Amino acid sequence: MAGNTFGRVFRVTTWGESHGPALGAVIDGCPPRLALSAADIEAELERRRPGVQAHATSRREPDKVEIQSGVFEGLTTGTPISLIIYNRDVKSQDYDDLKCVFRPGHGDFTYQAKYGIRDHRGGGRASARETAARVAASAVAQKVLDKEGIRVLAYTLELGGVRAQNLDENRIWDNPYGCPDPEAAVAMEARVQAVRGQGDSLGGIVQVRVRGCPPGLGEPVFDKLDAALAGAVMSVGAVKGVEIGAGFSAARLLGSENNDPLIPGGFAANRAGGILAGISNGDEIVLTAAVKPIPSIAREQQTIDLEGRPRTLKVKGRHDISAIPRIIPVLTAMVRLTLADFLLRQKAIL
Amino acid sequence: MAGNTFGRVFRVTTWGESHGPALGAVIDGCPPRLALSAADIEAELERRRPGVQAHATSRREPDKVEIQSGVFEGLTTGTPISLIIYNRDVKSQDYDDLKCVFRPGHGDFTYQAKYGIRDHRGGGRASARETAARVAASAVAQKVLDKEGIRVLAYTLELGGVRAQNLDENRIWDNPYGCPDPEAAVAMEARVQAVRGQGDSLGGIVQVRVRGCPPGLGEPVFDKLDAALAGAVMSVGAVKGVEIGAGFSAARLLGSENNDPLIPGGFAANRAGGILAGISNGDEIVLTAAVKPIPSIAREQQTIDLEGRPRTLKVKGRHDISAIPRIIPVLTAMVRLTLADFLLRQKAIL
Amino acid sequence: MAGNTFGRVFRVTTWGESHGPALGAVIDGCPPRLALSAADIEAELERRRPGVQAHATSRREPDKVEIQSGVFEGLTTGTPISLIIYNRDVKSQDYDDLKCVFRPGHGDFTYQAKYGIRDHRGGGRASARETAARVAASAVAQKVLDKEGIRVLAYTLELGGVRAQNLDENRIWDNPYGCPDPEAAVAMEARVQAVRGQGDSLGGIVQVRVRGCPPGLGEPVFDKLDAALAGAVMSVGAVKGVEIGAGFSAARLLGSENNDPLIPGGFAANRAGGILAGISNGDEIVLTAAVKPIPSIAREQQTIDLEGRPRTLKVKGRHDISAIPRIIPVLTAMVRLTLADFLLRQKAIL
Amino acid sequence: MAGNTFGRVFRVTTWGESHGPALGAVIDGCPPRLALSAADIEAELERRRPGVQAHATSRREPDKVEIQSGVFEGLTTGTPISLIIYNRDVKSQDYDDLKCVFRPGHGDFTYQAKYGIRDHRGGGRASARETAARVAASAVAQKVLDKEGIRVLAYTLELGGVRAQNLDENRIWDNPYGCPDPEAAVAMEARVQAVRGQGDSLGGIVQVRVRGCPPGLGEPVFDKLDAALAGAVMSVGAVKGVEIGAGFSAARLLGSENNDPLIPGGFAANRAGGILAGISNGDEIVLTAAVKPIPSIAREQQTIDLEGRPRTLKVKGRHDISAIPRIIPVLTAMVRLTLADFLLRQKAIL
Repeated sequence: MAGNTFGRVFRVTTWGESHGPALGAVIDGCPPRLALSAADIEAELERRRPGVQAHATSRREPDKVEIQSGVFEGLTTGTPISLIIYNRDVKSQDYDDLKCVFRPGHGDFTYQAKYGIRDHRGGGRASARETAARVAASAVAQKVLDKEGIRVLAYTLELGGVRAQNLDENRIWDNPYGCPDPEAAVAMEARVQAVRGQGDSLGGIVQVRVRGCPPGLGEPVFDKLDAALAGAVMSVGAVKGVEIGAGFSAARLLGSENNDPLIPGGFAANRAGGILAGISNGDEIVLTAAVKPIPSIAREQQTIDLEGRPRTLKVKGRHDISAIPRIIPVLTAMVRLTLADFLLRQKAIL
Repeated sequence: MAGNTFGRVFRVTTWGESHGPALGAVIDGCPPRLALSAADIEAELERRRPGVQAHATSRREPDKVEIQSGVFEGLTTGTPISLIIYNRDVKSQDYDDLKCVFRPGHGDFTYQAKYGIRDHRGGGRASARETAARVAASAVAQKVLDKEGIRVLAYTLELGGVRAQNLDENRIWDNPYGCPDPEAAVAMEARVQAVRGQGDSLGGIVQVRVRGCPPGLGEPVFDKLDAALAGAVMSVGAVKGVEIGAGFSAARLLGSENNDPLIPGGFAANRAGGILAGISNGDEIVLTAAVKPIPSIAREQQTIDLEGRPRTLKVKGRHDISAIPRIIPVLTAMVRLTLADFLLRQKAIL
Repeated sequence: MAGNTFGRVFRVTTWGESHGPALGAVIDGCPPRLALSAADIEAELERRRPGVQAHATSRREPDKVEIQSGVFEGLTTGTPISLIIYNRDVKSQDYDDLKCVFRPGHGDFTYQAKYGIRDHRGGGRASARETAARVAASAVAQKVLDKEGIRVLAYTLELGGVRAQNLDENRIWDNPYGCPDPEAAVAMEARVQAVRGQGDSLGGIVQVRVRGCPPGLGEPVFDKLDAALAGAVMSVGAVKGVEIGAGFSAARLLGSENNDPLIPGGFAANRAGGILAGISNGDEIVLTAAVKPIPSIAREQQTIDLEGRPRTLKVKGRHDISAIPRIIPVLTAMVRLTLADFLLRQKAIL
Repeated sequence: MAGNTFGRVFRVTTWGESHGPALGAVIDGCPPRLALSAADIEAELERRRPGVQAHATSRREPDKVEIQSGVFEGLTTGTPISLIIYNRDVKSQDYDDLKCVFRPGHGDFTYQAKYGIRDHRGGGRASARETAARVAASAVAQKVLDKEGIRVLAYTLELGGVRAQNLDENRIWDNPYGCPDPEAAVAMEARVQAVRGQGDSLGGIVQVRVRGCPPGLGEPVFDKLDAALAGAVMSVGAVKGVEIGAGFSAARLLGSENNDPLIPGGFAANRAGGILAGISNGDEIVLTAAVKPIPSIAREQQTIDLEGRPRTLKVKGRHDISAIPRIIPVLTAMVRLTLADFLLRQKAIL
């Protein structure tokens, strides 16, 4: 049973390969009578677009979206919303030499093992390009969240080992790394330039915060809100770790330190990250994700080919130094999709 | 839409409250003709049983399981397997004073917010007692995994800040903490005794390893194997963070350091933790989970009551110092349930 | 992927074999704070109980239900409701000679073909006994429907070729056949007695009507309300045909005859059976189901054994002459379960 | 929770409105390495195309399909297959006067009641045009069935009260009504011409037969194969009744007449229609569906407008006299989609 659908009530099915004609998303279960336009969606896509930041890949997609169904006279109708984004700037020949060789750190080997066939061009379905459909769909999810006043904020906490110390949310996008600490952003820039010269790549850490989430979202016992968020965020290719609230640091706290005291109107601390027993508690939801370095690097690597013979490989083509900051709108998207789904799920019990 | 079912093809639905008459699991989708007995299941339950370890809660459940359906003459029949575990050693009166007050760090507040009602006795559905049903079901899942030679191993990597340095898998259960490093286990014991005297509790870190997993398990793009494992493990109440392979440390590596080179017959390193692009690669799967300290502590805490008025609270009743080591079979269970499901999902495409 | 769960939001998973220790249902997604007692459920079970009607099977089950979870102080809590009905009057030895032979008209052959194993005692999972769990669960569903004022009525339209001419709803249960036409009920009795003497069995037709259903339930395009009802009713073993509204007779009407004119406040006719384009229109929902004769008959039949060799068989044991009227509460149950699910599904879009 | 996805393992999500830019289907869970081309799909679409038969609607869609993903070098890859069919011959102005008035027999009233908004142009999502996406997807399903040698055959059993007496399968498509009885086809033609002159429309009955289906498909207890087929076929807008095998006539048979005797190698009769206890028995599957007359008629009808005021209406635009024969490939499609899904579901238990 395949896994290209996300959500139970607000359901998104995505499709498309990196070098196919298009990719898209079908959203089923969106409430009717929400204002929705292609421009709403394109604004979100713009944030994950290659080429926006100086250090980003040189592939440039206009990322125009077409709404093919489910919207009538500017309003959602309750029927499926089909979104299509055409792939226009495709250079498949860059990938010809990857047809028979597996790139380290990529899904080439595992797709071949799973399906006995793969579209090797640009990584096929395993390409980060796939996330454009997620981001497009999340613009629709945000329309659902808007009705409840829920907002999702995300930023770079760390890049290449450089960590933001001051989290000034007003400064996040006045630097090319989505970093809320301007001084750290300068150090990140230096780190990126150094690594670029070595033909190497960088990982980092992104933090996501949700404000305005009402208490009560999340479903015992398997579909806890934190379980769903962890799964959602981990479904983004580059993510290797997820924390809710204090996360791994909670493992070293005493119970008396880790418990958030309740006070009239809320909580006196938020080490829980806004979720208790899998259900939102009305406090800010805080999620932190570890992002691995981009596996496509310009340095020679050891690998094997389709017949299992040893090979060396230098990955050609256009590649980012880091998934950060382009992954920020993608992680934001997954959190939005999760919350929109749980918001509608909660309605069914009221 | 509620969330008490886990899995798509190998599906487990659990039910039951801490102080209700019983709890149980219904397993739908188990292949037929697997040998299964109550003893197989009770052996797993024994490992998470309260009272097995010296420092564990004084509630003692025999945790006998009854197989109510789906097994005929010792073999599974393909029909639903209903497992029931009766609650026998219940002291609900210990919880009478919690009817109108919310325990910090627990789901009391959020269940009330979500449902407008809650069974306060022993935490109701939010109690760790719920996990007995998961462990019971996982014994059935392991039968599915046995056919493929898949084994799941788990142990305590860290407890109260004390970290295992040597991972000697043969020593895991010769100490009461499930720790593969005997020297660290001694230090853990000292740490537990100190904290017990303070009426406080401890968190820690558990690591899970899967051996014998064939390549090809995991479903692009949302149901990646690592996404499913992260969600599964995070659905255990005490877990606040999950890592696959190098996890958060990958955020600080260069691409050239983090990529696992392919060599004939496998991989030269395993920073990926056995999963590439969400699909198992045939290598060992490595997952690490952060466990928060037990929120029920004997120290006075600040909280509020049902009417929102400030209160102080000392939690009475029988409580562990740490969810470790009893959480080890629970995390093992969630990994087994996930793998059994993905194994059967993969069959549908072959 | 197995199929023992019904519904998407109001979800029921049933389990149990005819001659196992018990059977049961787990209901997940029931809204909280509904009054629910075992007596509520047993009242429904009483209507499908063997032995209530003179002509029914001589197996007599008390059909007491235990609520194992999900109810606290008489109210649902929103967590899973586990219902157990113990099998007490089991005579498995009656079935010993069926271990190696397939009864015509039964699932013996197909279960063996599907699973390579089967619990032959009393039909195992394929026994009509299984429907007790459905009926029990439907008592909970009705609690959801009660909040909206939705009522489900069902009766025998035809038995053994004898058809009710006058549908007097007040007379349905003053005869043993659930027939709203007292004169037809007398003829049915004569027909039953004649067939009983021949060691044979009878089929018939049951009609179900839903009142108070608001417009708007049903989900385009695959989960139309009529599609869901048809599937639900056809999932009852004995049902071989389903009609909505005019049903097969619509095939012979002109469009001008079949269309129901709209008038202020409703419809001037109801050939549509209360559903248009798969969505309830606020009118009475009318569903008709064909029930095949009980396949277990006391007459000699031609069959084969496990090795495929020809055999003759006279089915021993206790058997009804017709699934009617005991199937009436079962069909009622499936309609209730469907409506409760769609009612909650509709809430998610509002 | 919306309902535009069909199937559990072989999953199809459709989208699109009658007068939107396009409609389409996303197929998730299709096995890899099946040969698939747009021409394969267009051949199926051709059979349901408006304008193929003399009496059909004058709207003429070329119904070219674009495969946007999931196929690489002519083979499926296991990733989602996105199919798009553009709407080219749209005359929305024909529907302007339907914006504020509800057509009898159509979903206009119920869509408005459900969503509070509707795309009135050509019936929007409720248009029979929607079924093009189903037929397109079913061409992919057939590829899965081809591997097992499963074939689906369908034909007109009755049209406007004229019933086929001789079922000569070789003659089905040598008349414009898909009727296997050439003499009946002549009478059908006469009936259609008469009704056309009256501005009215006709219903009928379609029969579907499945050959080569192995025993063992179907899932107890709710997802019985007959339950799934009934739901699938009833999800086609015009269908008002479904029978499996003997169907309603079984209600009048004795058990001794209705039971199919087993003989070495199979069954001596097939009143069960190829399904026992919800599981295929290896015999031919026989399903019969009642098709209501087209509700759009050129005669004046009584209705109401959006404000509930009485109105009269003559439906303009291009309409068929009967959903037959264009519904034949649609019913075929639903049976194929169901079988492909159950075939893959069965693999998971083997």
